[in-house]
Amino acid sequence: MAVPVFWSSKIDPHSSEPLRLNAELVSTWLVQFLRDECIRRRGITQAVIGLSGGIDSAVTAYLCAQAFGPDNVVAVRMPYKTSSPDSLTHAQLVIDHLGLQALTVDITGMVDGYADWEALTPRRLGNVCARARMIVLFDLSAKLGALPIGTGNKTERMFGYFTWHADDSPPINPLGDLFKTQVRQLAEHLQVPEPIRKKLPTADLEPDQTDEGDLGITYEEADRILHYRMKGFPARLLVEAGFEERKVTQVDRWVDATHWKRRPPTVAMLSSSSIGDYYLRPVDY
Amino acid sequence: MAVPVFWSSKIDPHSSEPLRLNAELVSTWLVQFLRDECIRRRGITQAVIGLSGGIDSAVTAYLCAQAFGPDNVVAVRMPYKTSSPDSLTHAQLVIDHLGLQALTVDITGMVDGYADWEALTPRRLGNVCARARMIVLFDLSAKLGALPIGTGNKTERMFGYFTWHADDSPPINPLGDLFKTQVRQLAEHLQVPEPIRKKLPTADLEPDQTDEGDLGITYEEADRILHYRMKGFPARLLVEAGFEERKVTQVDRWVDATHWKRRPPTVAMLSSSSIGDYYLRPVDY
Repeated sequence: MAVPVFWSSKIDPHSSEPLRLNAELVSTWLVQFLRDECIRRRGITQAVIGLSGGIDSAVTAYLCAQAFGPDNVVAVRMPYKTSSPDSLTHAQLVIDHLGLQALTVDITGMVDGYADWEALTPRRLGNVCARARMIVLFDLSAKLGALPIGTGNKTERMFGYFTWHADDSPPINPLGDLFKTQVRQLAEHLQVPEPIRKKLPTADLEPDQTDEGDLGITYEEADRILHYRMKGFPARLLVEAGFEERKVTQVDRWVDATHWKRRPPTVAMLSSSSIGDYYLRPVDY
Repeated sequence: MAVPVFWSSKIDPHSSEPLRLNAELVSTWLVQFLRDECIRRRGITQAVIGLSGGIDSAVTAYLCAQAFGPDNVVAVRMPYKTSSPDSLTHAQLVIDHLGLQALTVDITGMVDGYADWEALTPRRLGNVCARARMIVLFDLSAKLGALPIGTGNKTERMFGYFTWHADDSPPINPLGDLFKTQVRQLAEHLQVPEPIRKKLPTADLEPDQTDEGDLGITYEEADRILHYRMKGFPARLLVEAGFEERKVTQVDRWVDATHWKRRPPTVAMLSSSSIGDYYLRPVDY
């Protein structure tokens, strides 16, 4: 069947070309974004980043080091007792390479202070850990007069593959409109250490867990499907162009099931000055 | 000076009439809102509420008991070691009166698991406690397949007088468009026990702390000023009508300084499918 004129670009399931970045331009722009939002508008000159040892937080640290200067970036490692030692080692590579201020706050006391109370499933434990890390990041930021910087990418945001009020909590997020495979391009351009770029993405919440294992699709495939679907191409056209139907359907399902995670809470509207409905204001500084 | 035609209502600093509710209609509507958002749309038939012993969470519990049935409402008391014993007692009044399921989860282990690590100021400790309570509410909800229900009112939301990613975190909030003095009207109509209705509002984060002491203004005054300001009346007209200039200015300052707390985080926009900018979707269920 012919592609309708409205969707005039060609769908190619085998090409990552539509996702290719001008990595130099994007990183320059993101450094400017961080300076503009944090320093110029909010008057805050220090950043706090949770370094997980993964690629997203590493790229964020590289951008922040340029935007704020390495002396003004506090990298926090927040291991739980079951976290992989590799996570600490990989985070250390970033800290050393950039010369960041560094702190390690073990969250085991916090988490087990709750989790002792009853047995948690691995999924619930993962969410408790992620939220405990949010508490540490925000508290250290309050202590230092700094801003916590978010590290979530667009693929995980679209899949809802993150803990609500945790990974998505920092007030400023430079990578949230870049798919995972685009973050990888940026990582290469920024010369993020190879062990971090090459390892399999994992939330490190359970042993041997990988993102792609959880999701049942590679980021390469997921990003290509998301790209076309978010541009408005119907699922049917993707399948006709050669994408696997099962995967297109799965991507749609994750996206549809998680709109609530990308929106503020639902508040009962009772007046003509309801916040966010009638009463609309930008962020003031 | 004459009031311009555009602001045709009369400003009366001594009347609470513009804030008067039809409490019966509002409570009926809010019960319907809870049923509609939780049960009909999301298919979730149980609610989890953090009962602080204060009026907001008590009113929320009364509404939820009607909406879900008392057997389907889990009231959680989450004391910290320094919390007032009155908070527990007052929460128990609500639990007994409504016949709710009840749990007590002491957050001292969680909080001190972090706070031992370093000495926190009272303000930072308060935020850590509030966020630890969020973790418990969300985790119990995950365990039970229930929804956490928020209890924040419009006055504290407008003042930013709450902990970000804590009090404002539940996905559903019935009271968020009602000023504090309107919540009091609802409490009277719902026959919330008198000790809860009559006590001074407090976040119970520090001994002898009261909201009105922190804010330097009574809720009666604050709500009247907010009402007119949010309707678009200029500050100048409020002062001319007899409101204290110092208080009008202070209210404006709190509101202006906290817009960021009422909005999602700022994400760098890089594409024509940026989430929340171009890619706009309602909550799906």
